[in-house]
Amino acid sequence: MIRMGVIGCGYWGPNLIRNFHNNPDVELVAIADVDAGRLEQVGRLYPTVARHSDHRDIVKDTSIDAIVVSTPVSTHFPLGMEVLESGKHLFVEKPMAASADECRRLNDAADRAGLVVMVGHTFLFSPAVRKISEYIDAGTLGDVYYVSITRVNLGIFQHDVNVVWDLAPHDVAMLNHLFGATPKVVSANGRCYVQRDKGIEDVAFVTLEYPGGQIANVHVSWLDPNKIRKMTFVGSKQMLVYDDVDPTEKIRVYDKGVEIQPHYDNFGEFQLRLRSGDIFVPRVDSVEPLKIEAQHFVDVIRGEAEAVSSGHHGLEVVEVLERACMSIRQDGQPMEMSR
Amino acid sequence: MIRMGVIGCGYWGPNLIRNFHNNPDVELVAIADVDAGRLEQVGRLYPTVARHSDHRDIVKDTSIDAIVVSTPVSTHFPLGMEVLESGKHLFVEKPMAASADECRRLNDAADRAGLVVMVGHTFLFSPAVRKISEYIDAGTLGDVYYVSITRVNLGIFQHDVNVVWDLAPHDVAMLNHLFGATPKVVSANGRCYVQRDKGIEDVAFVTLEYPGGQIANVHVSWLDPNKIRKMTFVGSKQMLVYDDVDPTEKIRVYDKGVEIQPHYDNFGEFQLRLRSGDIFVPRVDSVEPLKIEAQHFVDVIRGEAEAVSSGHHGLEVVEVLERACMSIRQDGQPMEMSR
Amino acid sequence: MIRMGVIGCGYWGPNLIRNFHNNPDVELVAIADVDAGRLEQVGRLYPTVARHSDHRDIVKDTSIDAIVVSTPVSTHFPLGMEVLESGKHLFVEKPMAASADECRRLNDAADRAGLVVMVGHTFLFSPAVRKISEYIDAGTLGDVYYVSITRVNLGIFQHDVNVVWDLAPHDVAMLNHLFGATPKVVSANGRCYVQRDKGIEDVAFVTLEYPGGQIANVHVSWLDPNKIRKMTFVGSKQMLVYDDVDPTEKIRVYDKGVEIQPHYDNFGEFQLRLRSGDIFVPRVDSVEPLKIEAQHFVDVIRGEAEAVSSGHHGLEVVEVLERACMSIRQDGQPMEMSR
Amino acid sequence: MIRMGVIGCGYWGPNLIRNFHNNPDVELVAIADVDAGRLEQVGRLYPTVARHSDHRDIVKDTSIDAIVVSTPVSTHFPLGMEVLESGKHLFVEKPMAASADECRRLNDAADRAGLVVMVGHTFLFSPAVRKISEYIDAGTLGDVYYVSITRVNLGIFQHDVNVVWDLAPHDVAMLNHLFGATPKVVSANGRCYVQRDKGIEDVAFVTLEYPGGQIANVHVSWLDPNKIRKMTFVGSKQMLVYDDVDPTEKIRVYDKGVEIQPHYDNFGEFQLRLRSGDIFVPRVDSVEPLKIEAQHFVDVIRGEAEAVSSGHHGLEVVEVLERACMSIRQDGQPMEMSR
Repeated sequence: MIRMGVIGCGYWGPNLIRNFHNNPDVELVAIADVDAGRLEQVGRLYPTVARHSDHRDIVKDTSIDAIVVSTPVSTHFPLGMEVLESGKHLFVEKPMAASADECRRLNDAADRAGLVVMVGHTFLFSPAVRKISEYIDAGTLGDVYYVSITRVNLGIFQHDVNVVWDLAPHDVAMLNHLFGATPKVVSANGRCYVQRDKGIEDVAFVTLEYPGGQIANVHVSWLDPNKIRKMTFVGSKQMLVYDDVDPTEKIRVYDKGVEIQPHYDNFGEFQLRLRSGDIFVPRVDSVEPLKIEAQHFVDVIRGEAEAVSSGHHGLEVVEVLERACMSIRQDGQPMEMSR
Repeated sequence: MIRMGVIGCGYWGPNLIRNFHNNPDVELVAIADVDAGRLEQVGRLYPTVARHSDHRDIVKDTSIDAIVVSTPVSTHFPLGMEVLESGKHLFVEKPMAASADECRRLNDAADRAGLVVMVGHTFLFSPAVRKISEYIDAGTLGDVYYVSITRVNLGIFQHDVNVVWDLAPHDVAMLNHLFGATPKVVSANGRCYVQRDKGIEDVAFVTLEYPGGQIANVHVSWLDPNKIRKMTFVGSKQMLVYDDVDPTEKIRVYDKGVEIQPHYDNFGEFQLRLRSGDIFVPRVDSVEPLKIEAQHFVDVIRGEAEAVSSGHHGLEVVEVLERACMSIRQDGQPMEMSR
Repeated sequence: MIRMGVIGCGYWGPNLIRNFHNNPDVELVAIADVDAGRLEQVGRLYPTVARHSDHRDIVKDTSIDAIVVSTPVSTHFPLGMEVLESGKHLFVEKPMAASADECRRLNDAADRAGLVVMVGHTFLFSPAVRKISEYIDAGTLGDVYYVSITRVNLGIFQHDVNVVWDLAPHDVAMLNHLFGATPKVVSANGRCYVQRDKGIEDVAFVTLEYPGGQIANVHVSWLDPNKIRKMTFVGSKQMLVYDDVDPTEKIRVYDKGVEIQPHYDNFGEFQLRLRSGDIFVPRVDSVEPLKIEAQHFVDVIRGEAEAVSSGHHGLEVVEVLERACMSIRQDGQPMEMSR
Repeated sequence: MIRMGVIGCGYWGPNLIRNFHNNPDVELVAIADVDAGRLEQVGRLYPTVARHSDHRDIVKDTSIDAIVVSTPVSTHFPLGMEVLESGKHLFVEKPMAASADECRRLNDAADRAGLVVMVGHTFLFSPAVRKISEYIDAGTLGDVYYVSITRVNLGIFQHDVNVVWDLAPHDVAMLNHLFGATPKVVSANGRCYVQRDKGIEDVAFVTLEYPGGQIANVHVSWLDPNKIRKMTFVGSKQMLVYDDVDPTEKIRVYDKGVEIQPHYDNFGEFQLRLRSGDIFVPRVDSVEPLKIEAQHFVDVIRGEAEAVSSGHHGLEVVEVLERACMSIRQDGQPMEMSR
């Protein structure tokens, strides 16, 4: 049994609390939040779990093995350092911290102490992404030319971070994972509409160039009325569309087919020529990714697995986010990733 | 070159005129309609084609080889007889005639004169239906248990025939063709809503039992706001959904997969468990079925093919429609098809 | 605080347990299941809740106010009677019991003892159904002519009840609720495919005629590869489609528009003429219906609300199911509901 | 009656020929194509129309009033000049010519001769775009913040022009029309995958900044397995999605609704929170845009309308395409439009 505590009962915290609580190898012993009402509301679902308004009551509890931090990004670093310095393993929500430098210091602290740092890049644990990974690794798609991504919704406007920090970590984490690499060049354009006075971008277009030649274009927005989470992988052999919002057909694999230039006799046949190959829609398990992620943290702590979303992986994501924001400030100037 | 004439320039006529006119083996020489405005409107698209207000001018033209009849159902029989008696091949729109008896007399007349009768069951020529036929014949679906069909739209209310005569011929023609048989029992329920005073049903549910054990349930309606043309074939091995309204994915073949009784931990996973197997969406050609149908009529006249939608096939469809309407009058009483 | 126990930790039980446990007015004190492994698996999520292999340990606990029964249908009656006879309020899953007679005896027992009986017809508490109810009551649809319902999926084959008892209770409960009445005539056809030897129908078509003139046709199946939960309400003014599987657009309201008989010049325009009016897609809350249902049970026990899915309502649903199955045995013979 | 000729019977030509032929105010007298087989194939559908292998036979025919040019882009200028110099009105397919300079010279020639030049920007005549125009002009969307556009399909690879010249003209024409302005800054990124050796881009991302503050991001590709034609207009009040591939719901207008930051109790409710306002789907006529466009050309020639897609408008589109390609050559450098 791994004894755990969770700091932060806000938007995402309850999902983590529920999944770690339900994990058979975990004993969730304490939760903390500065908001007393929130603490009470969440806490009453778990009557055996201790509640603290001061997170230090969890940090200093020597019976606890690992702590989950699900708080605003700016607090990830100081809280994470407290956790590691108290000798506990750390699970920190994404993005890992507010700067690459902070991430590096967290990783150094963990390395020195021989502790685990894992970042909550949930999508790496989704059955759909695992299936995409299999397809890419097996060469089903051929060479991946480019990935076109749309991650938009009518937003929850964050006040401390822009839309790139809020939404793009998912995509960067997935792409880095799928391509087994980090981009060599990052460029981005962004706009501030709703929070123009604060200079917080609510729409952005980010371009990533990977060493293997793949390009990814990521459109993130808090202003779109539809929640869209769609990634289109265009390969030399086949194409794959991953639509995370589709309840039943998350992944679709398209044959290219043969396109012979036709002469249409009429408007109707023209209208109907929308695609040219077969489509395959594989079954994808409907397990909640967080459940797999929680188990993975357990396995890593026990030394039975290597962290997929390690602190090093989390750092690389933040490095990309930093470059993207620098590029936005310079009107889309491409930014080399530091070697 | 087969010289042809078309009687009837109404709702469907122009599609037939266009396709026969465009066929390289056909010379369309004359069209007729009692409505002078309609004749003029359609005729001006084909300046070389003669226009007649009296169909007899076409019938008596001895240079003409074949005539297409696209007029109200009640006129199919008398017009068809005139055509056959003048020694010309006959293409008649579906349903073939207003009663099985009329159909039989048309077939007899054609047989005596050695002429072709073909009925405009267009769907038999659609690439999608041909693909379904391949799947069924190849045993891909296993034994077909039942077919559930919805053919509804916001209607064009016919004043002379009810919704069964208007919409169900498509389904009966397809099913008879796919199963290579005609039903042994027919039952149906229907309702009159909009034309209650005239007693013309605008909604009906028809059940067909085929000798091979397959059941088909056909829902036809003129009152539905959505145009739906959907056939679900449930087989012992796989299932096939044919959605004729979908522009790009007309056919979907579903694996059954394995369904293990799960215990859901939460509402989300429950919501997501909507299906359990892979799906395959084959490419389907986007040729206009009428183009294939027109060519088929040519081939049959030339003796190069046997009519898929022959007069005999057209008769069997009408026999089913008659039984369905008898059943409606008797509150759904099952009707045996006469041996 | 209402003290509660739950009997049955199987397929649906955990959802009830979670929702009653999370309700702020409920103290969930005990759960029971004959399957020790299942009891253990569910129980460990709620460490403060007592676990019993014998449900009588819950029934006899005088500190408990109400009991939830989520067990196979055949046990609803005996367990429900034990609960009521012990002086506790009863929440029983749908269908209420295995026969109308059993339902009546449960209602009588509750009436005598002044206890609440509520049946778990969850859909009555879904935000979508509440919205439909508003539309119908406000006359938005005009007179409802008919309702066409498809409730199919690749099934979990029940061994004790057929597909009518398994799936149709949802529809009957909703329709009775929406129309404020119970059908006067019920007819049904059904087929046994997979469990032919046991005579358990896996596909059925049920027709309900309501006193207000509305007809409902319900297609239920365990053999369809797609999970479909779709209800189309066709009214004299507007139409409404309720698609419970659609994650974002559960309800669509269609204007009829005006349909003028067009003459198509070409295949394309013909293909595109699929509908003729505007569509309105209202926002529907995404609250879990069970959460509302759980709160409703609390409110009813406290006398603050009248049960929407009362024992009387539950009885009326079972009466319809009984008639439907009788009709199936008699090849679709219409069954009058006993006055 | 306006007497017309058409030069070019290739991919798009037959659609123009059919629509001008069917127009009651037009007499189509001649068609031309250098490919004899193509000329024969198309010509036989219109037996009264003269066929020429040399377009000059049409140009020099003084009985002809107007000529339609539907040939490869590089020939638009020389053919267009011949047409105008022969004193005939010109309808030229999009893009208007291979450079802004060529467009200007065509416009000058037309102005000098008092002739009409109209460019085949078909989308300006689609009922959907007309409806969007109404919404924007009426302020229904509020201030348009940005437009996100995807125009991709599995391509017909052009050998003379890149994907920007092939697909983006539609978007630039529509946006210029809808915003009543031409962009002040254009930037673009593009990639060559399939025709890497020829340096012809098959994927591009183009950004347009309009003087009114609206931004448009246009993704064009010949490599995507799905045909997507989607424009999302994000405004301060409402959002509008135009999906040209959807057969029945081309336009959807989204309310923003109110988004209150929720605390999810479970995964399911989280999954379901995909949008927050009502949606309105207006009925859109299903007329073929080319039919309206053909009539518009007639009206302009007769002086009864001012050309919506005039030579001036066509020039402005080409100016944007030129800047986009310059920007691609300079790695996305923003290009000012010449004042």
